[in-house]
Amino acid sequence: MWWFWMFTSLCWLYPGVADGGNVLVFPVDGSHWINMKVLIEELHSHGHQVSVVRSSDSWYIKETSPFYTTITLDMASGFDEDFLTAFVTELLNIQRGERSIWKRIKLEMEQIQAGFEMNEKSVEMIEMIMENKELIQSFQDAQYDLVLTDPVMPIGAIIAHYLKVPLVFNVRWTSHGEGHFAIAPSPLSYCPVVGSELTDKMSFSERVLNVFLFSFIQFQLSYFIEPSFDGLVKKYLGPEMNYLSMFQAADLWLMRVDFVFEFPRPTMPNVIYMGGFQCKPAKPLPEHLEEFMQSSGEHGVIIMSLGTLIGELPHELSVEIASAFAKLPQKVIWRYKGERPATLGNNTLLVEWMPQNDLLGHPKTRAFVAHGGTNGVQEAMYHGVPIVGLPLIFDQRDNLLRIEVRGAGKIMDVFTINEGIFYEGVQAVLTEPSYRENMQRLSRLHRDKPIAPLDNALFWIEFVMRHKGAAHLRTQSYRMPWYSYHSVDVMLFLAAVVLTVMVTIFISLKCLCSVCLKKKTKND
Amino acid sequence: MWWFWMFTSLCWLYPGVADGGNVLVFPVDGSHWINMKVLIEELHSHGHQVSVVRSSDSWYIKETSPFYTTITLDMASGFDEDFLTAFVTELLNIQRGERSIWKRIKLEMEQIQAGFEMNEKSVEMIEMIMENKELIQSFQDAQYDLVLTDPVMPIGAIIAHYLKVPLVFNVRWTSHGEGHFAIAPSPLSYCPVVGSELTDKMSFSERVLNVFLFSFIQFQLSYFIEPSFDGLVKKYLGPEMNYLSMFQAADLWLMRVDFVFEFPRPTMPNVIYMGGFQCKPAKPLPEHLEEFMQSSGEHGVIIMSLGTLIGELPHELSVEIASAFAKLPQKVIWRYKGERPATLGNNTLLVEWMPQNDLLGHPKTRAFVAHGGTNGVQEAMYHGVPIVGLPLIFDQRDNLLRIEVRGAGKIMDVFTINEGIFYEGVQAVLTEPSYRENMQRLSRLHRDKPIAPLDNALFWIEFVMRHKGAAHLRTQSYRMPWYSYHSVDVMLFLAAVVLTVMVTIFISLKCLCSVCLKKKTKND
Repeated sequence: MWWFWMFTSLCWLYPGVADGGNVLVFPVDGSHWINMKVLIEELHSHGHQVSVVRSSDSWYIKETSPFYTTITLDMASGFDEDFLTAFVTELLNIQRGERSIWKRIKLEMEQIQAGFEMNEKSVEMIEMIMENKELIQSFQDAQYDLVLTDPVMPIGAIIAHYLKVPLVFNVRWTSHGEGHFAIAPSPLSYCPVVGSELTDKMSFSERVLNVFLFSFIQFQLSYFIEPSFDGLVKKYLGPEMNYLSMFQAADLWLMRVDFVFEFPRPTMPNVIYMGGFQCKPAKPLPEHLEEFMQSSGEHGVIIMSLGTLIGELPHELSVEIASAFAKLPQKVIWRYKGERPATLGNNTLLVEWMPQNDLLGHPKTRAFVAHGGTNGVQEAMYHGVPIVGLPLIFDQRDNLLRIEVRGAGKIMDVFTINEGIFYEGVQAVLTEPSYRENMQRLSRLHRDKPIAPLDNALFWIEFVMRHKGAAHLRTQSYRMPWYSYHSVDVMLFLAAVVLTVMVTIFISLKCLCSVCLKKKTKND
Repeated sequence: MWWFWMFTSLCWLYPGVADGGNVLVFPVDGSHWINMKVLIEELHSHGHQVSVVRSSDSWYIKETSPFYTTITLDMASGFDEDFLTAFVTELLNIQRGERSIWKRIKLEMEQIQAGFEMNEKSVEMIEMIMENKELIQSFQDAQYDLVLTDPVMPIGAIIAHYLKVPLVFNVRWTSHGEGHFAIAPSPLSYCPVVGSELTDKMSFSERVLNVFLFSFIQFQLSYFIEPSFDGLVKKYLGPEMNYLSMFQAADLWLMRVDFVFEFPRPTMPNVIYMGGFQCKPAKPLPEHLEEFMQSSGEHGVIIMSLGTLIGELPHELSVEIASAFAKLPQKVIWRYKGERPATLGNNTLLVEWMPQNDLLGHPKTRAFVAHGGTNGVQEAMYHGVPIVGLPLIFDQRDNLLRIEVRGAGKIMDVFTINEGIFYEGVQAVLTEPSYRENMQRLSRLHRDKPIAPLDNALFWIEFVMRHKGAAHLRTQSYRMPWYSYHSVDVMLFLAAVVLTVMVTIFISLKCLCSVCLKKKTKND
């Protein structure tokens, strides 16, 4: 009966229940919600209970959903889409119009001001939530197994540590820049700061720029961001925690990139790469779109979308783009708001909304004209469609740069393009086979994984629930003061030892010499 | 017919043939071969052709095998098991006998001497192979898809780079110490140097020791090891390669640890963790062993093995251990060579060989008395059996330390134990439930992976074959001189700029002051 013994004795191997976990989600509103929703729907389909905290003014995060229940707070989300849309429109108008340097500076100052205001709102939100005893009690009563949050906003991390519940990030950015910079060693010689528009191959002057920009971010952090939050962190989480270590103490970082897209760099055991987790095979198109695609014949179709933040393009820019498209033998589907450009060709279909993933996965699609948002770029990579990039703000140029340096796309300057330049750019991507071949190579690398990114993400979320955290994957680094972490104290100690030894030897020799000399003088 | 279009258009997604790859293996002889063989058998079962390079004097690597073909070279393997066995026996005799410090120093010097000789043999081997035009031509003709090697010896890496064939390491050690130290940033504040017997939580004095030991290894490398190989590397691979960058340029590092066993630390995108890849569920035991196990009743069985390197234990030590075992209610299976100790109890079975994995996986097994070799420790962890450690040389104490600090085992000093001390140590591990519970917790964490370690290793080996390398996972760091990598040049430049600006301001102010003063004096 040894098998009976074996069966009963090996029960300890059962790692505990993961189904039916109880997950609290603190999302970031706006486009970040789009990818958080993918994780939430997957959690729901795995039988987990998901509660989402939302602001009463949230437009993206619906109050009712079959996938999650909501905890609606009577406060502003801090996400102001109207401001961003107005900013982009104004930026385009200035840069394509009079190019007034003063107006540009004024606009940028407004954006910085908006950043500060967002920070203030975030501080207010933390105080409002943490001081709401009833709410905190309800969080405690709910006995969550996990807090899932996007660390662009710190509130989720604060709540998780306060409740002593395992913490998982759905992350690409923190206040410290690209997520890795907050957790992994990041040699500035080949890890470009995002916003620098640099790659992992840098010349000397580019490395100087990278160090300079990094120092600037650190300066901003130390003098503006950390001081606003550090007090709150210490108040609610204890004096040994600070704004940075609070992030570093997360159990898992589900990073929204992979190393086909991102430049290879040092990483950490608790960073799980789920880049492209939102990508999926194309579904069949609605009949009218499928007909339009097929009507393109051997030339195929170009897809164009500049994302949700662009309200209307300046009319003269639309005219230039439309007339460039009109000269192409391809057909074009253009996600477009605003007045119809007079130069629009018969080959171009304007739509208010498009099933972007299904269009990108269609075999007739030849190129994607895009602004460079992470979702669109990853979808194009997944489907192997080369990109003509028209970046505007945020990380868009950096995202597109990662495609361009691999020869899978071309970045154009939206502030200076005209019909001719745009036509030539699109033509190049369409006719030089290397663009398509390179993007298809990236796609093959990206898809060739032992486990699909979304399944991997879910596995690790459930792992954290099963084992009540993942402390064994977290390094000791975040418990150390910076001088210990960098062994500065050890170096100073060793230098002091060497110095003491040298001084002792020097003094001894000097004494010896003077004694000898004295003796000699005496003898003389 | 859009689906037909889709089918024909998506052929580029097929990532190419991985079955039937042609793999060249440069193994390291001795115990390292045991785990390389696991990979080779798995490669064979996946339909790949494996050629193994062996020395004519190799005892471990058989000339004929159903799993691989051999390329036998008429040269010494550089692996001298007899020397190691004699070393361990002598070490035990000295330390348990007269404890003569001079004999110990003499013995250690002999070991260092043996290390230098092994280096010399390795240099000779490289020259002999690289100058054997016929052999090199045969390598070239074979058109290998991959070179798989253990980087303890550099010859495999040299051949791979010379043939321009993708290179995969089955690795835990390089000349630079633990494998990570050669490729990933390794802050000495929480990454202990192996041999230091330190953990990732270090006091100030321990951090000083760690920096000191690291510097010592670097000194050895710079003055003894690198100079012997650098010339050869440059001669055969070109002037831009050196001994370190040759390793760093490998496509993939299949690391024989995971972060349940190893302390969490920074890592790299091209490091794949396959710790425990050799572990498998227990098979039923031979009848006489199963009967012996069952006869132990509720008390269970202790398994003892000190690995292959120990010929015979000093007789008095065997007597102490045997009489300690005799006092236990448990039964004992002891892998033992040499004279039968007179104190041996009826409960103890001496065997010359044992099916270690099957015994460790048996539900009656209560503890494992082991020397701390990687294989045994990982097997015990896999099966959740707590360890009583008797480390002797190499990494054994460090391996056991990783178990001890997690509360899953106890290290004893083999040089000083006697019956009483050993009995108490074993008793503690048997009776304090925390040892077993902690090891079972480690086992649960270790087994809970999205893909089994061996399958993962095979996936990535085949990935490298499919895509002809994994350059996209390799950082730019290995192409940089150390001063660029650490941004020393940038720092010096920035310091120079700051200094120049300050000096300019100072001189300007001085001139201004003197002009003002002169004017004032004139006016006065």
